[in-house]
Amino acid sequence: MRLALGISYNGQAYEGWQSQASGRTVQDRLEAALAEFTVQSVSTVCAGRTDAGVHGLMQVVHFDTGLQRDESSWVRGTNRFLPRDIAVEWARAVPDQFHSRASAIARRYSYLVLESKVRPSLDAGRVGWVFRPLDGEAMREAALQVLGEHDFTSFRASACQALSPVKTLTRVQITRRGAYWRFDFEANAFLHHMIRNLMGCLLAIGQGLNPPSWMGEVLRARNRDAAAPTFSSAGLYFLGPVYQPHWGLPDRTPAYDWLP
Amino acid sequence: MRLALGISYNGQAYEGWQSQASGRTVQDRLEAALAEFTVQSVSTVCAGRTDAGVHGLMQVVHFDTGLQRDESSWVRGTNRFLPRDIAVEWARAVPDQFHSRASAIARRYSYLVLESKVRPSLDAGRVGWVFRPLDGEAMREAALQVLGEHDFTSFRASACQALSPVKTLTRVQITRRGAYWRFDFEANAFLHHMIRNLMGCLLAIGQGLNPPSWMGEVLRARNRDAAAPTFSSAGLYFLGPVYQPHWGLPDRTPAYDWLP
Repeated sequence: MRLALGISYNGQAYEGWQSQASGRTVQDRLEAALAEFTVQSVSTVCAGRTDAGVHGLMQVVHFDTGLQRDESSWVRGTNRFLPRDIAVEWARAVPDQFHSRASAIARRYSYLVLESKVRPSLDAGRVGWVFRPLDGEAMREAALQVLGEHDFTSFRASACQALSPVKTLTRVQITRRGAYWRFDFEANAFLHHMIRNLMGCLLAIGQGLNPPSWMGEVLRARNRDAAAPTFSSAGLYFLGPVYQPHWGLPDRTPAYDWLP
Repeated sequence: MRLALGISYNGQAYEGWQSQASGRTVQDRLEAALAEFTVQSVSTVCAGRTDAGVHGLMQVVHFDTGLQRDESSWVRGTNRFLPRDIAVEWARAVPDQFHSRASAIARRYSYLVLESKVRPSLDAGRVGWVFRPLDGEAMREAALQVLGEHDFTSFRASACQALSPVKTLTRVQITRRGAYWRFDFEANAFLHHMIRNLMGCLLAIGQGLNPPSWMGEVLRARNRDAAAPTFSSAGLYFLGPVYQPHWGLPDRTPAYDWLP
C-alpha cells in the first residue's frame, strides 16, 4: 500500500530536508518517527527538498508499507515520536502510481521579509530582513521580466542537480502588510537556490541599488556571477506541491492562516 | 538623564523577564548588553514582568544614565550586544518624572490559539493549541461577564504580589483568521497569571465543557480553585503598556503587523 503524508516543520533547527549522516535533518526525524510507529524501516520520497533553515508548510512524502492503519492513526501515531517543530498534518492512502515528486505539477513557495530599521527579534529565523525601504512597484516591474519559461542558469546554485536549467515561473506576487513583505512564487519546478537568488535580485532592485530592467539583464546573462548574492534562507516557506485534483490530497495546512 | 527603551523579544529561550541568579532572563540579557555598550552597570525598571515563554512586542524599560548618545546610537549600540531573539526597537530621552511601570495607565496583551486536530509545529512555542472546535459566540458571551472593575482573585496565581486583586478589564476582543484565534486583553493592570487563567476558562467554555454563565460564577467565587487550570504561556504576547500621549513614546513595533 502506498501512503502520502503532509508534513509541516520549522526549519531553524535542521540541516534541511534531505537525510544526512548527522541525522539532523527533517527527513531523518520523520523516518525515525515512522520507524518507531511502524516498527519497520521506512524510506520516504519528498516533493521538494528544502535547504537548512527553510520552513515547510506542506511538504508531501510518499512511501510503501504493508501496515494497515486508518489515516488518523498514522497522523497521531507518527506525531507522538516527532519533535515539537515537525508534525504530520494528514495521511492519505494513494494509488501506486502516485509519486510525491513526479506527480507534482507545480511547487509553491513564499518568502517573508521584514522592512525595519531594527533587525527581527520575535521573528528571528522566520523572516528575511532589509533596513532600507522597499519600492514595491520597482520589484513588481522586475518580477514581470522573469515570469514564464526561461533558462534560469543565472539564478542556479553551482551544486544544482537539475537536468535542465529551463523552468516555467508561473507566478510572482508581491504584497505587504505593514512592515512585512510577502513574495509568492509558483513554478513547475525550481532550481537549487533559485528563489533565494531571485530574492537577492528583487531586493537589490527594491532598495534602489539597481533599476528594474537589471532583472532581465541578469536572466539573459545565463551566468550566476551576474546575479546578486543568495539571500538568507530564514524567510523562505515551502507552501507545498500542487497535484491534479483526482489524487484527492489536501492542498493546505492550518499554518497557512498564520502567514501575513 | 532618564532614558526609555522599547524592547521586543521571543520568550521561548528565557525564564521570563525578571532577573534571576541563572542569568537566563530577558532583563539579564538586556542589562548585560547595556553594560557592554555603556561600560557602566545599568539597572532597568520594566512596565510589566512577563512569565517564562511569554513574548514581548513592546516591553518598555527606563533607567538613568550620565552617558550622552543620540537615540539611534542607543538602539544600534545595544542591539550589537543582544542575542538574536531580543532587540531594542526604539530609545527616547524622557523627563525624570517618567516611570515605565508607574506612568503606564494600561497594559495590552494578545493570546493566540491554534485550533487544529494536529498540534503546532512551525508555530510551536508561539501559539496555544486546542484540538476541539471553539465556539466564538460562547466565548464572547463569557468574556462580557469579566469586563469592568472586579475582584479577580479567582484568576490570580498564589505567588501574585499585587497589593489589590481589584483590576479593571477594559477590553476582551475575540477574533479569528482561519485556524488561528486571537484574544486581545486590555486592563489598567493584570494580576500574576491572570490572562492565562482567563484563557483556561474561556477555552473550556469555547470547547463546550462549561456554559458561558460559568465565567461569572468563577469570578464571583473569588477562589482560585473555581477556575480552569492555567493555560500554556506559549501563545501569550505582551503588546506593551499604554502611556499618556504627552510622554511622546511610540505605541507599537513592526512586529505588530505579523500577528494574525
